[in-house]
Amino acid sequence: MAAEARIKRIGVLTGGGDCPGLNAVIRAVVKTGLLEYGFEACGILDGFEGLVKDRMVKLDYQDVSGILTRGGTILGTSNTAHPFQYVEHDGDPADAQDLSDQCVENFERAGLDVLFCIGGDGSLSIAHQLARKGLPIVGVPKTIDNDIYGTDVTFGFDTAVQIVTEALDRVHTTAMSHHRAMVIETMGRYAGWLALVGGIAGGGDVILIPEIPYTMENICKVVEERSHLGKRFSIIVVSEGVKLPDGDFVVRRRVAEGYEKMRLGGIGIWLAAEIDDRTPVVSRAVVLGHMQRGGTPTAYDRVLATRFGYEAVVQAVAGNFDTMVGLQGTEIVAVPLADVADRQRLVEPDCGLVRAARSVGTSFGDGAG
Amino acid sequence: MAAEARIKRIGVLTGGGDCPGLNAVIRAVVKTGLLEYGFEACGILDGFEGLVKDRMVKLDYQDVSGILTRGGTILGTSNTAHPFQYVEHDGDPADAQDLSDQCVENFERAGLDVLFCIGGDGSLSIAHQLARKGLPIVGVPKTIDNDIYGTDVTFGFDTAVQIVTEALDRVHTTAMSHHRAMVIETMGRYAGWLALVGGIAGGGDVILIPEIPYTMENICKVVEERSHLGKRFSIIVVSEGVKLPDGDFVVRRRVAEGYEKMRLGGIGIWLAAEIDDRTPVVSRAVVLGHMQRGGTPTAYDRVLATRFGYEAVVQAVAGNFDTMVGLQGTEIVAVPLADVADRQRLVEPDCGLVRAARSVGTSFGDGAG
Amino acid sequence: MAAEARIKRIGVLTGGGDCPGLNAVIRAVVKTGLLEYGFEACGILDGFEGLVKDRMVKLDYQDVSGILTRGGTILGTSNTAHPFQYVEHDGDPADAQDLSDQCVENFERAGLDVLFCIGGDGSLSIAHQLARKGLPIVGVPKTIDNDIYGTDVTFGFDTAVQIVTEALDRVHTTAMSHHRAMVIETMGRYAGWLALVGGIAGGGDVILIPEIPYTMENICKVVEERSHLGKRFSIIVVSEGVKLPDGDFVVRRRVAEGYEKMRLGGIGIWLAAEIDDRTPVVSRAVVLGHMQRGGTPTAYDRVLATRFGYEAVVQAVAGNFDTMVGLQGTEIVAVPLADVADRQRLVEPDCGLVRAARSVGTSFGDGAG
Amino acid sequence: MAAEARIKRIGVLTGGGDCPGLNAVIRAVVKTGLLEYGFEACGILDGFEGLVKDRMVKLDYQDVSGILTRGGTILGTSNTAHPFQYVEHDGDPADAQDLSDQCVENFERAGLDVLFCIGGDGSLSIAHQLARKGLPIVGVPKTIDNDIYGTDVTFGFDTAVQIVTEALDRVHTTAMSHHRAMVIETMGRYAGWLALVGGIAGGGDVILIPEIPYTMENICKVVEERSHLGKRFSIIVVSEGVKLPDGDFVVRRRVAEGYEKMRLGGIGIWLAAEIDDRTPVVSRAVVLGHMQRGGTPTAYDRVLATRFGYEAVVQAVAGNFDTMVGLQGTEIVAVPLADVADRQRLVEPDCGLVRAARSVGTSFGDGAG
Repeated sequence: MAAEARIKRIGVLTGGGDCPGLNAVIRAVVKTGLLEYGFEACGILDGFEGLVKDRMVKLDYQDVSGILTRGGTILGTSNTAHPFQYVEHDGDPADAQDLSDQCVENFERAGLDVLFCIGGDGSLSIAHQLARKGLPIVGVPKTIDNDIYGTDVTFGFDTAVQIVTEALDRVHTTAMSHHRAMVIETMGRYAGWLALVGGIAGGGDVILIPEIPYTMENICKVVEERSHLGKRFSIIVVSEGVKLPDGDFVVRRRVAEGYEKMRLGGIGIWLAAEIDDRTPVVSRAVVLGHMQRGGTPTAYDRVLATRFGYEAVVQAVAGNFDTMVGLQGTEIVAVPLADVADRQRLVEPDCGLVRAARSVGTSFGDGAG
Repeated sequence: MAAEARIKRIGVLTGGGDCPGLNAVIRAVVKTGLLEYGFEACGILDGFEGLVKDRMVKLDYQDVSGILTRGGTILGTSNTAHPFQYVEHDGDPADAQDLSDQCVENFERAGLDVLFCIGGDGSLSIAHQLARKGLPIVGVPKTIDNDIYGTDVTFGFDTAVQIVTEALDRVHTTAMSHHRAMVIETMGRYAGWLALVGGIAGGGDVILIPEIPYTMENICKVVEERSHLGKRFSIIVVSEGVKLPDGDFVVRRRVAEGYEKMRLGGIGIWLAAEIDDRTPVVSRAVVLGHMQRGGTPTAYDRVLATRFGYEAVVQAVAGNFDTMVGLQGTEIVAVPLADVADRQRLVEPDCGLVRAARSVGTSFGDGAG
Repeated sequence: MAAEARIKRIGVLTGGGDCPGLNAVIRAVVKTGLLEYGFEACGILDGFEGLVKDRMVKLDYQDVSGILTRGGTILGTSNTAHPFQYVEHDGDPADAQDLSDQCVENFERAGLDVLFCIGGDGSLSIAHQLARKGLPIVGVPKTIDNDIYGTDVTFGFDTAVQIVTEALDRVHTTAMSHHRAMVIETMGRYAGWLALVGGIAGGGDVILIPEIPYTMENICKVVEERSHLGKRFSIIVVSEGVKLPDGDFVVRRRVAEGYEKMRLGGIGIWLAAEIDDRTPVVSRAVVLGHMQRGGTPTAYDRVLATRFGYEAVVQAVAGNFDTMVGLQGTEIVAVPLADVADRQRLVEPDCGLVRAARSVGTSFGDGAG
Repeated sequence: MAAEARIKRIGVLTGGGDCPGLNAVIRAVVKTGLLEYGFEACGILDGFEGLVKDRMVKLDYQDVSGILTRGGTILGTSNTAHPFQYVEHDGDPADAQDLSDQCVENFERAGLDVLFCIGGDGSLSIAHQLARKGLPIVGVPKTIDNDIYGTDVTFGFDTAVQIVTEALDRVHTTAMSHHRAMVIETMGRYAGWLALVGGIAGGGDVILIPEIPYTMENICKVVEERSHLGKRFSIIVVSEGVKLPDGDFVVRRRVAEGYEKMRLGGIGIWLAAEIDDRTPVVSRAVVLGHMQRGGTPTAYDRVLATRFGYEAVVQAVAGNFDTMVGLQGTEIVAVPLADVADRQRLVEPDCGLVRAARSVGTSFGDGAG
């Protein structure tokens, strides 16, 4: 790392799924570059797809003005383009090619001196691989799942938590009036942060996350005990990544049973059906889906995204490439991408958040607490 | 009707599904009764269940203070209790009994002089039957589906529309960044008001409602044409009550195919899968479910609910029983329950709302417009 | 009126203060013109200023795409430009000139066949004057004050009511915990609709509107009685247009007393000070100001604005000029501008809304109810 | 500190101004006490007033059920009661007495073993003094101003920031359409956190905080330069605690000039008037006031408040009295009250947040950046 870089022209791309705050990062990177350092700025379209296919646009002050509050990304993104295993749209994965040299070539031909990659673990791993090929890269961690190693929190997470919480607030009043068990399925494929934090904020009675094994018996016991205590309702919050109690995946099981994959609900619908079958309490599911990824970011995420964008440029100017900016405590720091790639920050089953949740009466379906 | 009633004691119940504004009506009925007329007020618990089982509580000023903003109903409700065909919980429908005499008896023993029934078409039909047995009843129309005959709009609808619209706003930004077709399934079993009005407010590209037949070809054409025009996304809003293109119900079809009923998604998930199969555009579904029924009402619904509650008491004092209050233009009027029962207010396929939607480029999947 | 017009090119402008839904009307006018009728569309910038100064831009489908949800107006506006009494910026009002001929000339030179004027009573009066000079004009009523004659409601009003209501909800919880009288000043210069409807929705204890005279004694009596009844708080909602109890204007009085005009608060701050002085209850004011005019419109306003825009084009095509579209009941109708100009729709002191408010215990400071 | 305490009965009080999340802390303290440790719980009413006057209530599970989402405090509070300098309501400050012995006596007679004091710097200083008299106290830091020493952030702050940000979003659209300079006055008497963080999140063009001196010239220069660059608007965010450019307080100056204190606006209204006078740009003020203190907390604040409440009980059980819980990084820690009392955590003028704000073009009125 280090040795101050001579930067004149910066490039920025957004990779992976949508996340509230992407535009706020782009704005901060470009404004800092333009106003603070006099750089030129260039946007790479549709994530790494644009780097492979050489789709780039000049970004001026006007282009990033007024985008702080907007969801989505003005640069577009792509979940699928992988420079090292590139497959054409609708192409056969067996035909994947390594087009990373093409990326380096396009980067150089565009006269770029640094590439800011805003993305989740997938995009950051690619960024690290490209950095090892010599591209001067600074990453910005992005995911509503909050599971990136090296940062206390990622932008987008607070917004997603707020959306889950508002949904729980709404569902709560119905459940209270109607003797219901309501299952709310949140995003979170590997890590339970969103269900955990949203569940605490929304006062969930049961929270199920991939990191803590559960049994149906324990869940049904909570639902029935609450019913006996005169509580007319139970709220169950579950990460989409939670498996069946025996460890199998819902979709795999259903496909094995002969169902068509795309037309099935996930763990939330499965749980609601089980509770409905096993207890006298009527149960319904709400699947929040992509609602959690879109729309205007919360104030928290706008500020975090702005700080990330600014500090990413500062790191680039300092020559700290092959790094990612991250929040640690109250400071933004640079973390080597090598430490981040291929790791996930999961919920520790006995962390303070889980203990706090248990202490106010929340069950994790594991019989404890 | 008419001949001023000597009222001393009023009863109020809430029947059917949850709906934002129920507490606002209860508050207005009770406060108007207590403050304006010096009545006593009594709450019947859990809808008609409480009338059958004689579960009632006295309601004082304090009991209804501060509930204007709260979702749900402080009286509880029950979707199932039908005094004329009463079945015990978990009982066999074949054992249904007529317990309406019991209701009349309980009403009289409680010393009630009028019963305010806040409910949807089911509850209002029961209310009408009880009125014909001599109970002095005034109804208040309630449903987020907005399909009750005799009123321009029902309380709860505006809140549900707002929730659908906010969800569409969020999903929009994701769709714009990701080349997606997003299907959002709203409530609305028989009438398409919620999908229609929410779809207009949220800028839906396709709106599917039970009242307008559609074909998959037309939907896919819209999605693909938008894609060719450089629009990266399409938003499809669909009422849960929309059937398959051939007129069959999704759930019936799937059950006939051997799937378990409870574990299936509805029309939204089906549509997303079809679009995904039939076009090159990736498609995902969001099912808003009970989120649309709960939580704090919008200002519009609070005001409408307050006006309904007040006017229901005014009608009772005027002796206008066997009626329902309704909004017509800017005035609250009394409508005979006989005109309301067993009718539904559906969307006219050529009404001004539909025409306005078509004029801004929305398709109804019928190839027109 | 009537005789179908041969329209090829339409112009649209927005006049007066900001109002949520302006962009939704522009979008509906332009999309309907483009898609439904094949017209060309032209935006006149900064209200009548742009008509005087010939500042116009072509509007394509892309220009109005995605603006449904945005506050403000993409065309800009101007509160001050009056074609018949035109004064340059920072000019002397004594030098006002009649530039209406200039407007007609610019309209014709631009090849326009119809002008859509979206504005409040001031703009609509100008529109009517221009129509009498021969310009083919259709107006669209706009104001958060909701006081335009000929329409049950104007777009923007519902959003402003919702903002007032959310502010009241927030202030309520503080007032409940702290033995406070909180005064919330809303907009509404001549008509009390916003304070009235927002006050009902937010559960105001006292609502003061220009249409109902009040005394300080009555207000203080409510505050003190509530205090004696153990209610720890009172919420007072007041229109900015409410005068002092003796009929004088706050600002005139204060200026007469030697205060500088711009640095003074209005009636809200005055009332809070009076209550603080006259009762043992601590009182504070919140002045919502321009917050009530901006930001994304509610679903209700987006739909109303879309319907207005669509129907305005329909009226133009039918040749119904010198009219304004308005909502009457559930229908959009055309109202002659002659009936609208120089009139205001005020709150009737004994209308259903006021009676409903009184029935739930709200005082209007007049000692009644 | 330390030596495990034998706790059977816990007391909790809330002091000072309102703050979103107070009920969430009370709930977590009481539920943790009841469910986790089998304690009895007791609520002291109206802050230290209730301790002086022996106003206490038993708190059961039901009492704290459902309060997570509610603003305000179920225990009431009082800004004024100071046990060491106690003055009766409307009493003469000269008659202040030390009633701290009374507090100790009441505490003991109630059989309490620990007192949880949820409050701002004033309340925590009192708590520390009482702890030095031997009361076993654990404090919980509370303020929307975020200026308590020893914790990275206080609950309530995130909610207040979100409210400021939403107000800025609304005002922005009006400013963009109307050539305006809008001044938004936030809370923040000594520290500028709320204006700073809200201003970043809302994209403020100028942010004025007590920690950074400014001149009117610099502010007007920003407003005029933006105007020349074609930007039609400027947004100025200012803490209520910002003084006049010469260091005097607005209110003191105005009172010195002969104005009545209560009837004056503060720095926001003063600034808007100055900008209006000194530049050709029309300027208006919005004063958010108590709206920032009330209403339902954000998800972030609910979670932080829950963690604080839980950890406060854990600290009490561990015997760590005369401490306050605080967030440091991602952990909740115990901080000696001695370190917290009589200190304030102000904004460092060159901290990362300020630098990030400058880098995206925000001015602090100091001519730098």
